[in-house]
Amino acid sequence: MLALDLHEIVGVVTEVGSKVQKFKVGYIVGVGCLIGSCRTCEDCADDLEKFCPKKITTYDGPRYYDGTLTFGGYSDHVVVDEHFAIHWPEKFPLDGVGLGGLGHVAVKFAEAFGAKVTVISTSPSKKEALKEFGADSFLVSHDPEALQAAAGTLHGILDTVFAVHPILPLHSLLKNHANYILLSPPEKSLELPVFPLLMGRKLVAGSSIGGIKENEKMLSFAAEHGITADVEVIPIDYVNTAIERLAKNDVRYRFVNDVGNTLKAA
Amino acid sequence: MLALDLHEIVGVVTEVGSKVQKFKVGYIVGVGCLIGSCRTCEDCADDLEKFCPKKITTYDGPRYYDGTLTFGGYSDHVVVDEHFAIHWPEKFPLDGVGLGGLGHVAVKFAEAFGAKVTVISTSPSKKEALKEFGADSFLVSHDPEALQAAAGTLHGILDTVFAVHPILPLHSLLKNHANYILLSPPEKSLELPVFPLLMGRKLVAGSSIGGIKENEKMLSFAAEHGITADVEVIPIDYVNTAIERLAKNDVRYRFVNDVGNTLKAA
Repeated sequence: MLALDLHEIVGVVTEVGSKVQKFKVGYIVGVGCLIGSCRTCEDCADDLEKFCPKKITTYDGPRYYDGTLTFGGYSDHVVVDEHFAIHWPEKFPLDGVGLGGLGHVAVKFAEAFGAKVTVISTSPSKKEALKEFGADSFLVSHDPEALQAAAGTLHGILDTVFAVHPILPLHSLLKNHANYILLSPPEKSLELPVFPLLMGRKLVAGSSIGGIKENEKMLSFAAEHGITADVEVIPIDYVNTAIERLAKNDVRYRFVNDVGNTLKAA
Repeated sequence: MLALDLHEIVGVVTEVGSKVQKFKVGYIVGVGCLIGSCRTCEDCADDLEKFCPKKITTYDGPRYYDGTLTFGGYSDHVVVDEHFAIHWPEKFPLDGVGLGGLGHVAVKFAEAFGAKVTVISTSPSKKEALKEFGADSFLVSHDPEALQAAAGTLHGILDTVFAVHPILPLHSLLKNHANYILLSPPEKSLELPVFPLLMGRKLVAGSSIGGIKENEKMLSFAAEHGITADVEVIPIDYVNTAIERLAKNDVRYRFVNDVGNTLKAA
């Protein structure tokens, strides 16, 4: 089993229940943030299981139906309702998935969608690295002149920044009627400038994980277009060092924890 | 001419240009925030003239095509491109219009739309007054128990509060996938809690004036359903006192300045 994070898991099916139809032993599957939900409420019916009030998260959540604590990807196996496991696309690398390292994967997806992509970063050093992923232009977020020159030009912004940061200078890059979507929740509230929202009929919204159907579509699209995350595969006993390096932003762009092979070797 | 504000004007047509087709002398018309725009850009083509980069506002804006300064409703006449004047519905009171006193008119419109309306106010004293407009329930915004009891119940919030105020306790009243729309821009930025936006797929957006077509529809709907603002009509020499009373929130709910009759009398 590979774990990009507690909630981004890839592995091989080792056992199935008697009523399972979707998978057989030996199939390769992905598991995201959820391993259960009520399957009957309005959100479940809309394939938006993440909003189900009875959802069971892959880690750190309520117990599984059998009372087991959930540990996410940092364990030698996980038990999942078949609905919440996703067929792994053929020949798609197991360690290439992940919506972590959000920004660089977002660039790859946006390019594959046919969008013209501008990367905005605090760090000018990311300019070259991000062009490798196919971005069309680059803006340094603390360069007022560059921001001024690009004002009112973007159809949308995906904000993947976890640090507390100002919305306003970025928001002003949007055209009227455009959307500013937050994907990483900073620990503190952000300052929301209201007047520009009103005058430009702009909106600010948030989005987190998708429903299972959306995840399946995402994974098929990624396989079809060869979209993978740039990763560094590590053994599980490297995890503390990896966390220290993460804190220093020292990874391009994502660690993948090879739980299965590490445990096999041990 | 009646002026609810610099940009909410009702009056009688006294003169028309040779090419005007929409109005004749004697017609009653309303004029909003705009008296001109390019009429050719994408936003003008979409009947969203307010986003036109060449728009001419009714007051305080760039000069009119003939070089005249614009003074809004506080003048004895205004010159307007016919596109920006709106036919006044028959038998609809001239002093009853206004999207000022936003909250109480919003309640009347929402009721007419068939919505179940909850009024949220800092002031418990508004409970009775607002029930007069047909609201279904009432919440005091600084009563944590009442807010907790109503958490996750609303399909949307129209925020008409001009004062700087917290979004979070109100935001938590929304169901998942619901919208929080700001209609009055406070002078300072508001604190935007990001985690609830992400987890509930909620959005925060702003809206200001409508396009001319939207204004026409709004006015017809108001006439059809008898929706008028509750107003106090004043002569123009009362305007300074009215401003002082406004600052003390001492008006139920809107002053209308009878510019035309006052000037006729003088």
